[in-house]
Amino acid sequence: MTDDPKDTTRRDFLRTSLLAGGTAALAGQAAADDPAITEIQPWTQYNGDGVDARPYGTPSEHEAHVVRKNVPWLTADPVSSVNFTPLHELEGIITPNGLCFERHHAGIAELDPGSYRLMINGLVDTPLVFTLQDLMRFPRENHAYFLECAANSGMEWRGAQLNGCQFTHGMIHNVMYTGVPLRLILEEAGVKTAGKWILPEGADASAMTRSIPLEKALDDCLVAFKMNGEALRPEQGYPVRLVVPGWEGNMWVKWLRRIEVGDEPWHHREETSKYTDLLEDGTARRFTWEMDAKSVITNPSPQAPIAHGPGHTVLSGVAWSGRGTIPRVDVTLDGGINWHQARMSGPSLNKSLHRFYYEFDWDGRPLLLQSRAHDSTGYVQPTKDRLRELRGVNSIYHNNGIQTWAVNEKGIAENVEIS
Amino acid sequence: MTDDPKDTTRRDFLRTSLLAGGTAALAGQAAADDPAITEIQPWTQYNGDGVDARPYGTPSEHEAHVVRKNVPWLTADPVSSVNFTPLHELEGIITPNGLCFERHHAGIAELDPGSYRLMINGLVDTPLVFTLQDLMRFPRENHAYFLECAANSGMEWRGAQLNGCQFTHGMIHNVMYTGVPLRLILEEAGVKTAGKWILPEGADASAMTRSIPLEKALDDCLVAFKMNGEALRPEQGYPVRLVVPGWEGNMWVKWLRRIEVGDEPWHHREETSKYTDLLEDGTARRFTWEMDAKSVITNPSPQAPIAHGPGHTVLSGVAWSGRGTIPRVDVTLDGGINWHQARMSGPSLNKSLHRFYYEFDWDGRPLLLQSRAHDSTGYVQPTKDRLRELRGVNSIYHNNGIQTWAVNEKGIAENVEIS
Repeated sequence: MTDDPKDTTRRDFLRTSLLAGGTAALAGQAAADDPAITEIQPWTQYNGDGVDARPYGTPSEHEAHVVRKNVPWLTADPVSSVNFTPLHELEGIITPNGLCFERHHAGIAELDPGSYRLMINGLVDTPLVFTLQDLMRFPRENHAYFLECAANSGMEWRGAQLNGCQFTHGMIHNVMYTGVPLRLILEEAGVKTAGKWILPEGADASAMTRSIPLEKALDDCLVAFKMNGEALRPEQGYPVRLVVPGWEGNMWVKWLRRIEVGDEPWHHREETSKYTDLLEDGTARRFTWEMDAKSVITNPSPQAPIAHGPGHTVLSGVAWSGRGTIPRVDVTLDGGINWHQARMSGPSLNKSLHRFYYEFDWDGRPLLLQSRAHDSTGYVQPTKDRLRELRGVNSIYHNNGIQTWAVNEKGIAENVEIS
Repeated sequence: MTDDPKDTTRRDFLRTSLLAGGTAALAGQAAADDPAITEIQPWTQYNGDGVDARPYGTPSEHEAHVVRKNVPWLTADPVSSVNFTPLHELEGIITPNGLCFERHHAGIAELDPGSYRLMINGLVDTPLVFTLQDLMRFPRENHAYFLECAANSGMEWRGAQLNGCQFTHGMIHNVMYTGVPLRLILEEAGVKTAGKWILPEGADASAMTRSIPLEKALDDCLVAFKMNGEALRPEQGYPVRLVVPGWEGNMWVKWLRRIEVGDEPWHHREETSKYTDLLEDGTARRFTWEMDAKSVITNPSPQAPIAHGPGHTVLSGVAWSGRGTIPRVDVTLDGGINWHQARMSGPSLNKSLHRFYYEFDWDGRPLLLQSRAHDSTGYVQPTKDRLRELRGVNSIYHNNGIQTWAVNEKGIAENVEIS
């Protein structure tokens, strides 16, 4: 059962909800004894800091809790580890650069941009070496893309484990990149007829490598040097990273120093012992690069309860697909008995996060919240159980199953599984 | 004379330019004696910082020069002053929150979000007071909008003065906002029939106010609490600011504490002695809220010379209009004798920055660079001389004239005027 998306012009609904739903105290008469209204506040009495106080700005001290977090028990060694984007604190579709989750295998490489070089070698007519300034002389493009780690939600294959969308779904960020189409750089070197694969390599101490089919390299990959307008952050590959739209994050090689062209995949560590999906029968799926459509409700969620009691409530979430856009997301409040079409908000961009909302009048009874993304190819996000039927529970990768949050009478949400 | 936009698939052009245009050293053979290639770099030898090093990330130390800057002689008192976005260091269309220019009249108000209140009063059926949490219960929208100060380029009315697009054009930023349509909040209070104007008021010590017609308030204004995904920055009005798409920045009241509904404009200080445009005949234009279409070349520019010598060069710039989108930008290299259609790149969003490029093969001779924006209403950005004919040079506001950079044989650019 699906109803229409809510319309932001439905005044009656809102008015009724705000006045009747436990928030009657909002009305003007409450102001008479509210010191936040009747008293002059400190920030109104004195001049604040001037325009020279913070040449590069920082968040309010009241937002100090909005940070990337790691899970110490998950990976003991912080230099080969991951932290998580605080999805429950974010809105819209852009992830601020300071909150983009990090995954690295030998810590954050701190490159000197003056010594930066990118080599193109292997099956090419002319091996080339570029400085950063050389790259700036190629035509640039600008695109917003999500980057999701293949292991995002990986701890959830065997059941609900991590209590918060920051931890279950926070290995994702969405950034507007500026970069040179990789196609132009490969064409400059001239790929030989036998060249069918590329091997991007990182300049960090792990020298990360992945095999990528030439077809993808020539399609939409970018050699990127800016994120959300400014230089890449050190933990995101400063000064240059590879952008592989819609494909698993491990392939977006950071601190990119070399691209080799070859005639077959290299079968390196990160595409054999890692980033392959071990199935029930002992075989493994490999080359599962593309990220399937997925969504998660970010508010309410375990780290972000419903704090206001019964009444009008805004449910917010994000959805994405490695294959295109998200024309539709469904939301259920009762564990899948009734589905409602969510309201999509903001630009709908290819292989980018999409924001959805569902506004409802909460009666204070327990909820079982789920969201289900549909992508522009017609693919519909599956249940976790359906994924387990198909692939078992041996892998930690490519879990794009529907997430359930159970909300109790107090508005507190918990990560649960329902069958 | 106008030619076609450059196409990023024109391999021959690029190859010829890179190999012949002074960058033959890019080819692989140069690697033999380049220590950045032949020697193992320090960042490859040791593990870097772990994922717990910076919960809220910061730029590379090599980007320390990419900051907002003020011009001390322009306004001596930093608490009632302005700083400027480093446009020449940015790409794409998103301005990172830490680099968004600041303008404030009593310093940065540092509000406690727990004590935040928004009052709606005046000609309404029910005066209302909202907490921050109350606002979160209204339906939200997400839009990227530019915010430009009406005084941007104001020092240029009487001739070329400030040498760098950060200073001539840097009172602009472009951010994706999340907020509640102001319409919904006004409808909640119920605007009386006599109500025709609103007066938003700030909670800082300047208690900034501006009169805005109700029609605009009900159209696309937002009561915003997030910018680029995260909470507003303190200097941008944390926790809540008004967003007035396409209209001059002074109206986007920060630290928004009150919205009064009235039957006529208030004629307060900031819309009489300030933010009116004094004409040659002694009269003043008032209510010139909408920002006319404008553009500027950000690279090359006085702070960003052509450093690589003759050969293939990427010209980059931004364009915007308070009336819609920018379908087209023209670029000239010779002071307007020949115009070339620029290549637009990235999402084209209503009342948002647009990025344009023009790739050309620089022969090393002096250039006179200009860009000219066309907006979706058909309006074409005028010359500064044409604006002076119409309005004289007494105002510091609404200078959207075409900017000229003179580039010499060394690639150094300078702010000039040509007739």
